[in-house]
Parts: sequence; structure tokens; C-alpha cells
Amino acid sequence: MSTDTAPTDAEAACFEAGIKFGSLYHQFAGTPVSPDTAPSLAAAMADSIENQPHCREVTVDVRTDELEAALAESTADYTELTGRFLEVEIVVDYEGCEVVTRMEMEDGYPLMRLESVRSRE
Amino acid sequence: MSTDTAPTDAEAACFEAGIKFGSLYHQFAGTPVSPDTAPSLAAAMADSIENQPHCREVTVDVRTDELEAALAESTADYTELTGRFLEVEIVVDYEGCEVVTRMEMEDGYPLMRLESVRSRE
Amino acid sequence: MSTDTAPTDAEAACFEAGIKFGSLYHQFAGTPVSPDTAPSLAAAMADSIENQPHCREVTVDVRTDELEAALAESTADYTELTGRFLEVEIVVDYEGCEVVTRMEMEDGYPLMRLESVRSRE
Amino acid sequence: MSTDTAPTDAEAACFEAGIKFGSLYHQFAGTPVSPDTAPSLAAAMADSIENQPHCREVTVDVRTDELEAALAESTADYTELTGRFLEVEIVVDYEGCEVVTRMEMEDGYPLMRLESVRSRE
Repeated sequence: MSTDTAPTDAEAACFEAGIKFGSLYHQFAGTPVSPDTAPSLAAAMADSIENQPHCREVTVDVRTDELEAALAESTADYTELTGRFLEVEIVVDYEGCEVVTRMEMEDGYPLMRLESVRSRE
Repeated sequence: MSTDTAPTDAEAACFEAGIKFGSLYHQFAGTPVSPDTAPSLAAAMADSIENQPHCREVTVDVRTDELEAALAESTADYTELTGRFLEVEIVVDYEGCEVVTRMEMEDGYPLMRLESVRSRE
Repeated sequence: MSTDTAPTDAEAACFEAGIKFGSLYHQFAGTPVSPDTAPSLAAAMADSIENQPHCREVTVDVRTDELEAALAESTADYTELTGRFLEVEIVVDYEGCEVVTRMEMEDGYPLMRLESVRSRE
Repeated sequence: MSTDTAPTDAEAACFEAGIKFGSLYHQFAGTPVSPDTAPSLAAAMADSIENQPHCREVTVDVRTDELEAALAESTADYTELTGRFLEVEIVVDYEGCEVVTRMEMEDGYPLMRLESVRSRE
């Protein structure tokens, strides 16, 4: 049997959280980054995405250890931002439903996942 | 009282759908576009995002009527892609849960929303 | 008659300056921005693009007056970054040739242009 | 001694060519791509950038050999577009000056360079 119902607030909150993650990643992937410029880029990523509706908090860590490891293998002193260099947590609050989401590397891929969905009622 | 449970498949499906929307919008917003080049851009947007996990179908319509209206007011023959020129439908299938999402203009803003969440069990 | 010669250092410097401008614009156009978050975005834009080869200095001003004017006409409290909100100066130094370039609005369009090309010999 | 003169048409043409390259790269870097979707992405990249002023022709080749090699090493069936997968030629015509530019890999880096600058007078 199949059920087709109007989305719940929790589902809408998860949808909103996904939008923020896709936005953050595809807006900033490819940006030239080095250990020196990682902090200002991380700050701008967090501030910019926090503008989006229902977005309570964005925490971006550009992993300078990974950045330095990548640059040690190369002749360049900067590289392009990609998931390998990022740890991100995004908290969305939609109609009293709080969703915590996180991106980190798993098996060599940046994995975005739902951490928790919490309704206040 | 507050409840904090592991995300359901439906919630994870909605999160995945949001990721696709945020990705599509922020990857391609700002692309130079004209009525002549709208079809190839729309095709690439759909094809590219369909690569993402759990993404069953992406339909992108670049609204040439709006594009022509914008260009009629200007001296340029192209503009930058933004939500005003887009209608998008994305269907995600995650562990037997199908989510249909849509973006269209509402009150002058591109609004992304969940259309339906359907579990097959 | 047509002449086809190896590019001069001045021409290569101008090419490099153009790359920086195109990069800056298309990397960051579409970013969610508000008067509060404009400063961190401007800082990240400048820092990021200064990583690129031969780039001596990037100065980014996000025009909060224009941003506030745009938001006053709308119900949203943020918008997407576009040329209307930007004034940028980029200085490139390539093999002893300094090129100064600038982007600002002219007749409603963000115009990127060469200010000066200076050889030191 | 230092000379500071108004830019020549050839220098302006090189600046314009650089803008197109930076735009193309930073607009599309990060796009999800697979061997199946490479052709539509390449077509959209060329069509979109050809909209820009003074841009006569853009040729984009997404290197499916490199794409397949990258995917063979991974468990994913798509990856993110980056310079490793691209060969691009852009021809700009500015006030009778034709500039040919090219991007290809060199020592593991995507190098953008001026091929020729040709004045017709």
C-alpha cells in the first residue's frame, strides 16, 4: 500500500536543512583557498548561509591539516575548496522542529547526513 | 515535551531533496543566459543534478518569456540566471520513499517547496 | 595586413587580471548577502582571489547602500550577491608589469575595465 | 623608467579573454559530472560563456578518459568538475584584435594561457 500525505513540519525542516547544505557546498566549492585564507572563507560561508530562512546556526571548519597535506604534495601554495577540506554543522529551526545536520568525510567522500530531528510540542 | 528520535526514511528523503535543490540553484545561479542558450543550460542543469545520489528525475524549465521580458528592459542581449527565470521539479527516491519538490516564483521570490512525500510499504 | 606575434608581458598581465575578475564574479555571484554579512563576504572574496598567481591586491566593497535600497523594496532580509552591489579593484603584477582593473556600475551594468597598464623597465 | 599608458586594444582583448576563462571555470567547477552527462555540460558551458561580450567562440571538451580513470579509483559513479577534466579554447574578438586562449593540464595543474594575439590593421 502507498500513502501520500501532506509533508509534516519535521519533513519540511529536513528539506530546509538539505537546501542549506546544497547551497553552501555548491556556492563555495572551487574557491581558491590556502591555510592563511581558510579562516575568512569559513566565516563568510557560515555568515552567508545563516541568511537563509529558518537557518539558526552554521558552523564551518576548513580543515587546515588536510589543506596542508594537500599542498605538501604539490608545487602550488593554494588549492580549490572541496569536501575533503570541510567539516560543517547546520542547525535549522522550522515551526518548532529543530534539525541538526553535519557534513564530514567518510570513506573518502564528503557525506551530508541528518544528525537529529527534534520536535518541541 | 520534546522528542528526539532517529530520522525516518521520509525525513532523510526530504533532506536529500533539499540538497539537490540547493545544489542546483547555487551551482548555476549567475550563469550568463539568453533565450538562445536557455535550452542547453536547462539540459545540463537537469543532467548534472541527476547524478547525485537518490535523485530520480530533475526537470528544468528556463522561462524564456521572463528572460525576454528582462532583456527588453535592457541594452544587453543576455543576463544572469536567477530564480526569476526558473521552474524546477525534482523527484527523489530514498529507501522506497518518494519525494516530489518544486521551485517556482511566488510573490516575487523563488520558493522551493515539498509537493508530496509518499512511502511505499 | 595582419600581425600575429607572441603575447607581450603586458598582454599576459592583462589576461591574468581578467582571469581574476571572472573568477571573483562567478565564484561568488548568487551568495546570500545582507548588510550584516556583507563585510565577512567582502573579506573572503578578497582573500580568496589574492591566492591566485600574480595577484597582488584585491579590494572588495559590498555596497551596503545599494543592498539596503534593494531590501527596502522587498519582504526579504537578504538577497543574492550580484554586480549591482559590488565595487572591486584588482591589481596584478606579472613579470614586472602592473595592471590595475576595476569593476563598477555603469548604465545599470557591472562593467569590468582596465584602468592602467604599467611596465617597469 | 616606468611607463603608464592607456591600454591598447590588444591588452583590452587579453583582459576580456581572461574574464571569459575565469568565468567559465568558477561558474562550473564543482558541478556533478559523469561520462554520460559530460556532453550536455560541455555544450552548456560553451553556449553560456559565448553570451559574454566580445566572445567569438568557446570550445569545451570534458575529457571522459580522465573522468573514467577518476571514477575507476572510486566507489562513486560521478565526480565534481575540475580542471583535470577540461580542455577549453576561447577566442575573443575585441575591436579587430583576435585573441586565442587555451586551458589544459600541465604538471598536474590546469594552466590557462594566451596562444596568440592578432591585430587586423
